[in-house]
Amino acid sequence: MAEFDLIKRIRKTIGPPGHGTLVGLGDDTAVYEPPGPGQLEFLTCDAFVEGVHFRRDYATFEEIGAKCMVANISDVAAMGGSPARAVLSICIPPDMTDEDVDALYRGALDVCRRYGAEVVGGDTVSSPAGLVVSVALTGYADRYHVVTRAGAVVGDAIVVTGALGGSEAGLRALVQGLPDEGGVPDARRRHLMPAARVAEARALIEVATPHAMIDVSDGLSSDVWHIAEESNVGIALDAGSIPLAPCVADIAKRLGIDPLELALASGEEFELVVAIPKNEVERAAEHVEAVTGTGVTCVGEVVGAEMECTLVRRDGGAEPLVRGGYEHLNK
Amino acid sequence: MAEFDLIKRIRKTIGPPGHGTLVGLGDDTAVYEPPGPGQLEFLTCDAFVEGVHFRRDYATFEEIGAKCMVANISDVAAMGGSPARAVLSICIPPDMTDEDVDALYRGALDVCRRYGAEVVGGDTVSSPAGLVVSVALTGYADRYHVVTRAGAVVGDAIVVTGALGGSEAGLRALVQGLPDEGGVPDARRRHLMPAARVAEARALIEVATPHAMIDVSDGLSSDVWHIAEESNVGIALDAGSIPLAPCVADIAKRLGIDPLELALASGEEFELVVAIPKNEVERAAEHVEAVTGTGVTCVGEVVGAEMECTLVRRDGGAEPLVRGGYEHLNK
Repeated sequence: MAEFDLIKRIRKTIGPPGHGTLVGLGDDTAVYEPPGPGQLEFLTCDAFVEGVHFRRDYATFEEIGAKCMVANISDVAAMGGSPARAVLSICIPPDMTDEDVDALYRGALDVCRRYGAEVVGGDTVSSPAGLVVSVALTGYADRYHVVTRAGAVVGDAIVVTGALGGSEAGLRALVQGLPDEGGVPDARRRHLMPAARVAEARALIEVATPHAMIDVSDGLSSDVWHIAEESNVGIALDAGSIPLAPCVADIAKRLGIDPLELALASGEEFELVVAIPKNEVERAAEHVEAVTGTGVTCVGEVVGAEMECTLVRRDGGAEPLVRGGYEHLNK
Repeated sequence: MAEFDLIKRIRKTIGPPGHGTLVGLGDDTAVYEPPGPGQLEFLTCDAFVEGVHFRRDYATFEEIGAKCMVANISDVAAMGGSPARAVLSICIPPDMTDEDVDALYRGALDVCRRYGAEVVGGDTVSSPAGLVVSVALTGYADRYHVVTRAGAVVGDAIVVTGALGGSEAGLRALVQGLPDEGGVPDARRRHLMPAARVAEARALIEVATPHAMIDVSDGLSSDVWHIAEESNVGIALDAGSIPLAPCVADIAKRLGIDPLELALASGEEFELVVAIPKNEVERAAEHVEAVTGTGVTCVGEVVGAEMECTLVRRDGGAEPLVRGGYEHLNK
């Protein structure tokens, strides 16, 4: 199908522009009302490459479109913001049909609806090799509620939302073709359809003063280092406190690996890692769980930069925290 | 090189955030001041794929980065706006070095500086096959100066900036390996380093009331159809009036093709096609040329939708205007 016909089809799938959007897909650019003067704006992008971030033999086109969109929405959540408008580039391989492109768009649009975002434009081009999906997303937040990676101070607690390890457990189960039983269905879902913690971040900001925040996209061990480096602090992570997704124990056992290894290395979890004052932890955890149903667990504390990042083992000993996250760029 | 080190290197290349940008590359998202309440915001994206939009045997990494950025800036120009902030996803093939990535970024940054835009974020991922560059860009304009594709009315003149055919002439010269003489150096430059008409669009809006505008990215014959369809009008294009880039005659002659064919099919020219009231053409042309040095030429007029789009030949006869532009998605 020619590009022009495909664009018409995509416009139909997307529907009319949303509130505040004057021009959606189909012109040279989208046009919309900017956030108000009391707000700041966000912009982020993430590219998903076939054979690197996903494989078509275990992920549907809906799941591929959905996950790339969730990754971007999670980045906005990690700044304390609300997602707003997305553009979607798809590099389409020769064996992908128009129905497949439609399915990918539907996956992305479903996620947008769930989090109050809108697709306002895109580019569809051909790819001689694999599928590449690239999303860019704007967002906004009250200007006094923006949370970067750079504000953690010594004495802060490090808390995480939800439970970890599930995405990596799901990836390994899919790649190794584990039978679809025990923890596998849950793990597969966690890998292919993770949630973004937009409401959780907002609830946390309502009752606490987060100093630094990041979403787990490279893996807890790597993302903790990102906060430490940007804030110029160290972080002591308490191995025994890290909440594991229910599926992790079963899959770790079947693969003969340490569940903790999965939790530290698991990328694209999209759970939040937050540095907040210790005396706010209890109130924050109660409020976030009451509002969103998602748990908040204290997993460590911020220490001096000279201490670097460490993993405090269950026996009380400490070892350097090795960036064990999946590095997307394995060069 | 690992992703984290590469990001550090890119942050150094980009330098500190610009005016109004609170957080640039290196956090979950960029954070910046939105445009003021009197303005509207734009968002666009374009992906460039190796083997489809460029080949590394004739384009340098600087040129690849520059052109992908120019394509986005041109989209903002075609709405009457100023480019603001860009994010850049690069899918890096195994044979591309860190110096190559740096060069690609330098090309994109040079273009940003030239047009007053800024790179505020990006994603670098590995690609098992070719290089893919995907840029998303925001922009803004006074809310009463936004020009879509949808406002052309019967009786309007159709004008174009600059001269056409050069990009396609350059592409054919490069692909067919024509010796670097005669029109080839100019044509190559027009294909690899085209300009975006940001200042021209603004100058035009200062003295005229453009009803519809588009940039030539698919080819004049296709882009004229885009205006016609979105405005629900027809357009009669005057073949004898279409301004040809100086290199076109020479290259068309050497390839044994009609120069007009090059001008109609030439994509990624980034010249503007504008529908304006006929009585504004002279004033607009004089002002744009005085301010920017770029010529403005009347190439046709807007007619009723029932007339569709036609090409009026030099002999006065008319034929249907065939969408002869390069369709990026050759499926």
